[in-house]
Amino acid sequence: MRPSETIHGELCVGNVPLSRLAERVGQTPFYAYDRQLLVQRVASVRAALPAGVGLHYAVKANPMPALVGFMRPLVDGLDVASAGEMAVALDAGADPQDVSFAGPGKREAEITQAVAAGVLINLESPREVELLARASQRLGLPARVAVRVNPDFDLRGAGMRMGGGAKPFGVDAEQVPALLKALGEAALQFEGFHLYPGSQNLNGESIAEALRECLLLVKRLAASAPAPVRQVNFGGGWGIPYFPGDKALDLAPVTAALAEIQHRMASDMPGARLVLELGRYLVGEAGVYVARVLDRKLSRGQVFLVTDGGLHHHLAASGNFGQVIRRNYPVAIGTRMDATEREKASVVGPLCTPLDMLADRAELAPAQPGDLVVVYQSGAYGPSASPQAFLGHPRCAEVLV
Amino acid sequence: MRPSETIHGELCVGNVPLSRLAERVGQTPFYAYDRQLLVQRVASVRAALPAGVGLHYAVKANPMPALVGFMRPLVDGLDVASAGEMAVALDAGADPQDVSFAGPGKREAEITQAVAAGVLINLESPREVELLARASQRLGLPARVAVRVNPDFDLRGAGMRMGGGAKPFGVDAEQVPALLKALGEAALQFEGFHLYPGSQNLNGESIAEALRECLLLVKRLAASAPAPVRQVNFGGGWGIPYFPGDKALDLAPVTAALAEIQHRMASDMPGARLVLELGRYLVGEAGVYVARVLDRKLSRGQVFLVTDGGLHHHLAASGNFGQVIRRNYPVAIGTRMDATEREKASVVGPLCTPLDMLADRAELAPAQPGDLVVVYQSGAYGPSASPQAFLGHPRCAEVLV
Repeated sequence: MRPSETIHGELCVGNVPLSRLAERVGQTPFYAYDRQLLVQRVASVRAALPAGVGLHYAVKANPMPALVGFMRPLVDGLDVASAGEMAVALDAGADPQDVSFAGPGKREAEITQAVAAGVLINLESPREVELLARASQRLGLPARVAVRVNPDFDLRGAGMRMGGGAKPFGVDAEQVPALLKALGEAALQFEGFHLYPGSQNLNGESIAEALRECLLLVKRLAASAPAPVRQVNFGGGWGIPYFPGDKALDLAPVTAALAEIQHRMASDMPGARLVLELGRYLVGEAGVYVARVLDRKLSRGQVFLVTDGGLHHHLAASGNFGQVIRRNYPVAIGTRMDATEREKASVVGPLCTPLDMLADRAELAPAQPGDLVVVYQSGAYGPSASPQAFLGHPRCAEVLV
Repeated sequence: MRPSETIHGELCVGNVPLSRLAERVGQTPFYAYDRQLLVQRVASVRAALPAGVGLHYAVKANPMPALVGFMRPLVDGLDVASAGEMAVALDAGADPQDVSFAGPGKREAEITQAVAAGVLINLESPREVELLARASQRLGLPARVAVRVNPDFDLRGAGMRMGGGAKPFGVDAEQVPALLKALGEAALQFEGFHLYPGSQNLNGESIAEALRECLLLVKRLAASAPAPVRQVNFGGGWGIPYFPGDKALDLAPVTAALAEIQHRMASDMPGARLVLELGRYLVGEAGVYVARVLDRKLSRGQVFLVTDGGLHHHLAASGNFGQVIRRNYPVAIGTRMDATEREKASVVGPLCTPLDMLADRAELAPAQPGDLVVVYQSGAYGPSASPQAFLGHPRCAEVLV
């Protein structure tokens, strides 16, 4: 669900028409995130999840402090990818007990910070056992650890595979028993397993299948664990539709698989909680990026709407963030939602590079300077994933409405 | 020319071995730029340019204030792409007379700033005539303007075409006469033309051909100019070799074309100065990105060197900045330059995404945690063109040595 309400032909975010919101923010471009849509999305996921499954928010998707603070009481925990994100999560009031920290290259100082904070650390390498043992000893606190496993299977149909084969993420499944032994000897507090098989997956069947395979793998590995498994984090990777032809994820097979897994875990790993960590799926559709049209240029028959925003604020929409083929994010003229006329126009930014394109020959309401362009599906991996300093233009603002 | 001197098996930048430089900087990762290599590169370009051709530095390639300050006295002018870059150029001591400002989407406030500063503004649209006239009138200063032209030909062999066809950059050649008329009527101070046919071009012949075509176009357009042409900026776009198989640009055909153009301009446009604006070509090879190996992981037979740096500091090296196919930048283990042994290793960063890769199965000296990985050809479009806030990791440092 993305913002769709309009008032007098203007798109609203959190019931505020865009042009008024721009005045409130005091500048364009900006990102706007809709609280009500966040609440609705979390509620719909909760409704789909079997009772007892923990829902975590992956801060990396959108680390805006106000948004993390808003999400915190809605979910059961926060997952972070750096000491920087950990600080945001703790400042947002998260109980360290419910925070987990993953990342393939943790610096020694970060590991110490995580132990001092008391968060759950997802171990990704034998080296981290040593560093954690040292930090635990020095601080007099046993580090809480889960083992991130690089599974011995691939997730099919995923937008981006992060498990299976040779990977920098996690510990190869076949190396895990030895690591668990080392972990027990180092007197670290073992709590469970973390598996993250992929991201931006729109195929519910393949997510369900991966979940089932994850369970089999974890059951196998749990036999070598130095302590009972208390938490099993099966990641997320639930996708949202960005491009023409993308279909919203069908949760039915996922829900069925989770119910089955819950049932099996109750008998096979009593006391272990199943946790999912969702980022993009929770926040991606609730946000829009808004830029103002500065100029309308006609070049050899083609209309260019030149805006004050672009690639430097929204790298993903420009097609330069992992996409092989550039496709348009959904865009609209947010100040002309009632218009029925359409023209083919390209939306570009202020940068001196052809990469700075937000929409390539999209069907849009005819726009003029002053109008506001909206890029939908922009609640995740927006400003934090963009080169904001590029060409010395001002940073974008963010607002939670 | 890139840093190549070594001392005791360590790569040096500005005569300082990398590990000492890391201690001086106080952190890894960092970018290091070699003053001597900058001087040498400017000298070699000067030697190739016919007498009288102006050499400008395009700040966008590397806006580090210390570097811009160092380049300023070496070149004849600075080109900027935003009010932010203009401030850097003026703070570096540039004479506004020698600063030019281009960009397809200038905000009204930026235009006012540029007029107040007295820099040359490259007009890119009829709308800018109005805004400039208004600012000039209000400030009591005639705006200095050049017309950026979107040529009616394509530059062949360019890495990235920025002229020809329908483009958001500049004014279509066929619309220029009308614009020049409007410009004269608005009492703006016309000074010349700007053409920027492409970027990262490694084919000297195609650059030479474009220069010749640019001259013909400018001669044609000059007939409609409201005042004598004082400056003709033919851009840059000279490439540097990044990837296996890339050959360094052969300047001979470019030099020959420039000499011919100088000769013709002397008779056809007396009083007009030919200016080139180079960014990447001047600074790209003088810089390296340096990250520390945090972990050495073996996953299913493949070696991963996990470093504290990655995509968030060096988006281009990760292959996510306009590249269609990911290829490795030149990389080395900067602390093991004497090693003769080689292994196949992938260099990855600390981010939880498979996009965070600096080298995919490169032939490298076997490295251990603590070693420093060097990415060459990193003096241009580095930190400013990267999503530094991504996943909450620390920003990189920059040092001019």
